[in-house]
Amino acid sequence: MSAYELIRAKREGRELTRDELEFLVGGYLQGDVADYQMSAFLMAVYFQGMTDAETEALTRVMLGSGLVLDLTAIDGKKVDKHSTGGVGDKISLICAPVAAAAGVPVPMISGRGLGHTGGTLDKLESIPGFSTDFGPGEFERLVSEVGMAIVGQSPDMAPADRKMYALRDVTATIECPPLIVGSILSKKLSAGLDALVLDVKVGRGAFMKDVDSARRLAEQLIETASRLGLRARALLTRMDSPLGETVGNALEVREAIDVLKGGGPPDVRELSLALAAEMILLAGVSDEESEASVLAASELESGRALEVFSRFVEAQGGDRGVVDNPGSLPSAPMRLSVEAGAAGYVKSIDALEIGLAAVSLGAGRAAIGDELDPSVGIEVLAHVGTQVAVGEAVAVLHARDERTAGAARGRVADAFRLSGEPVKRPSLLLGSVAERPEARRS
Amino acid sequence: MSAYELIRAKREGRELTRDELEFLVGGYLQGDVADYQMSAFLMAVYFQGMTDAETEALTRVMLGSGLVLDLTAIDGKKVDKHSTGGVGDKISLICAPVAAAAGVPVPMISGRGLGHTGGTLDKLESIPGFSTDFGPGEFERLVSEVGMAIVGQSPDMAPADRKMYALRDVTATIECPPLIVGSILSKKLSAGLDALVLDVKVGRGAFMKDVDSARRLAEQLIETASRLGLRARALLTRMDSPLGETVGNALEVREAIDVLKGGGPPDVRELSLALAAEMILLAGVSDEESEASVLAASELESGRALEVFSRFVEAQGGDRGVVDNPGSLPSAPMRLSVEAGAAGYVKSIDALEIGLAAVSLGAGRAAIGDELDPSVGIEVLAHVGTQVAVGEAVAVLHARDERTAGAARGRVADAFRLSGEPVKRPSLLLGSVAERPEARRS
Repeated sequence: MSAYELIRAKREGRELTRDELEFLVGGYLQGDVADYQMSAFLMAVYFQGMTDAETEALTRVMLGSGLVLDLTAIDGKKVDKHSTGGVGDKISLICAPVAAAAGVPVPMISGRGLGHTGGTLDKLESIPGFSTDFGPGEFERLVSEVGMAIVGQSPDMAPADRKMYALRDVTATIECPPLIVGSILSKKLSAGLDALVLDVKVGRGAFMKDVDSARRLAEQLIETASRLGLRARALLTRMDSPLGETVGNALEVREAIDVLKGGGPPDVRELSLALAAEMILLAGVSDEESEASVLAASELESGRALEVFSRFVEAQGGDRGVVDNPGSLPSAPMRLSVEAGAAGYVKSIDALEIGLAAVSLGAGRAAIGDELDPSVGIEVLAHVGTQVAVGEAVAVLHARDERTAGAARGRVADAFRLSGEPVKRPSLLLGSVAERPEARRS
Repeated sequence: MSAYELIRAKREGRELTRDELEFLVGGYLQGDVADYQMSAFLMAVYFQGMTDAETEALTRVMLGSGLVLDLTAIDGKKVDKHSTGGVGDKISLICAPVAAAAGVPVPMISGRGLGHTGGTLDKLESIPGFSTDFGPGEFERLVSEVGMAIVGQSPDMAPADRKMYALRDVTATIECPPLIVGSILSKKLSAGLDALVLDVKVGRGAFMKDVDSARRLAEQLIETASRLGLRARALLTRMDSPLGETVGNALEVREAIDVLKGGGPPDVRELSLALAAEMILLAGVSDEESEASVLAASELESGRALEVFSRFVEAQGGDRGVVDNPGSLPSAPMRLSVEAGAAGYVKSIDALEIGLAAVSLGAGRAAIGDELDPSVGIEVLAHVGTQVAVGEAVAVLHARDERTAGAARGRVADAFRLSGEPVKRPSLLLGSVAERPEARRS
């Protein structure tokens, strides 16, 4: 067996065995397989794909490259939620405490912002004192005591994914379903989960541009999860326009707290409850979809989810005072309105452009290791369907200085596309994918 | 412009511009583009291919990465011959002196053995004292004074090809037509040629396994050559069985001398004369195919080609005594016969297996930098169509010791496939590809 032969085999479309993938991925992690060989292999996978058995084997190899947590000491089925990445996506901050309040243990391993999409860890770290850096033992204790935890991936967990992801990021091999599946599931399975709810984003601001490819990715994720003993369900949700009314770290935490207090934008509330209901179903806390939805809504309305969130912030070292007083979150020194250039109805708000504008303001990273500013971002005032007059403010930039604000202003204005005719707001939920019945029974 | 964007563009099937290819290839040569990015790019090219304009641009960029010789001071059209690589292929040693004897200046840049195929430089270096290492000035003087020279590629010539080839070799991206075209033509154009005859091999022992893909490669080579002002023609020739009766460096030099003396195996003589005639035609020494063939044959029969070969050996530092006394070439200490396991007619002799067996005896390199033994190799006694009895010798191994001979014996025996019915020897020449008429006129 040699790396050359395995690259060639994949190039020719052959299915690789688990031993062969172990040779490649294990060898890469140890430095025996060169990075230029791994990148050629990954590009061959991009074109030739992988069978279900191969994707399963790849995931097992990546999972086996590191530490796997054992959370069996915690009662109940442990459920996490994963989003494939969007703009203004603060849903984890809401659905996790709602599910936890309903009795679902939520051991969430989250990530940082990537490209134009934000990251849950970055958002949470805008809360003064909040830490996402906990070892396996502390993580288990947090889930056990609070009912939920949101931490970063430990370097010990799925290190093959970490190294391969960094390589994919610079060799244009990110957008490849079997590699996405291996990456997500190896990370998630490392956390000792029983079940996983997937929010697969579709549209302009997402990796998947159409419902069909998003559905195929969801099916592959669920199939591979099932082969590895992990139950999974997916919602396919629209990511053409930003979610909610804010993009930027502290701004999004504030919006999440608004929703947990019973207010906030309806789309954020709707999606958070839908995903929390899926978590409740997969945990077996409820067996019936409508019951799970009612339960999720009641955890939110009763304030129990907010209470879990407060305890969670405190347990992870954050200032729980931000819950009562979100004004204590970092705030940008300057605001700049963005006005509509014409009158009409907002037809679309380009999530990709809004996401990139937020990065340019300092809310995300242009390169790994860049510092980000928790206070900056974009408030979206007009939504799809809103009627606006010429000169009316459609957004407010929260910026650290005039230069960055001025540079982002045109981009944000251009992201708003207007129509002369009234526009109906499209539904957020585009579909769902459940496990195959035989998997569901097991 | 970034390497990432260009990899992604090629992955999506976009045609890259010359500036973009310059950015990638020039950046790679300077170390600004990482090898893992170049290998991902090369694999994307493997799957997406390149347009004619793109292949031309790639070749120009690779050519421009180094020194280009100017041989205009030498009278006449300078013509080289290139083979895509075969087993027992000693044709350059014959067609070059035949063409040179007919008045065609032959500045040949040749290569070393690669995988199971032999290399002309390795063969020539089995002549005591022979050197293939000459600088540009000496190369020009040799071609001018002797009429021909065969040397290795200088590190100054097409360095981008050298670096990319080494990477392709370990990332399974060798078998890719636009990359093959760029590699061959950038090297050949560096030598200041006017025209190039191509011997595109087809079959079990060649990179191209069928006539259609070989023809497409020949057409791409000729089209790109024409765009770069280089005239070219190609013969498509069979490489299922080894050429001639010997495989191995000194053994092949001896066979070439036999042919130059008017003897030797008919297939080697036939192909050498066919390629020499193509060189004579492209040089404009003759305008008519049958006349060029007659001229080539008369240069061989008159002994003038042998005389050129002797002068060439001497001019490059070799012992010209080997021409009169081939017994002075290195000779292996032991011989071992390989016998037919059954009676019948030889149906085929697997060139790939014979080539690999020769490498295992030490006639080629398993890895770059390996030492090879000029004396070892395989004499093929029975040819396709030969009737053999059980236990009759079909080949003789020339080996350095019993161990290597014993290890190769079974492989060589298995390479001979027998039939109960008489077998007709298939023709060597499978087709030819000329320039398009508009190119031919220019």
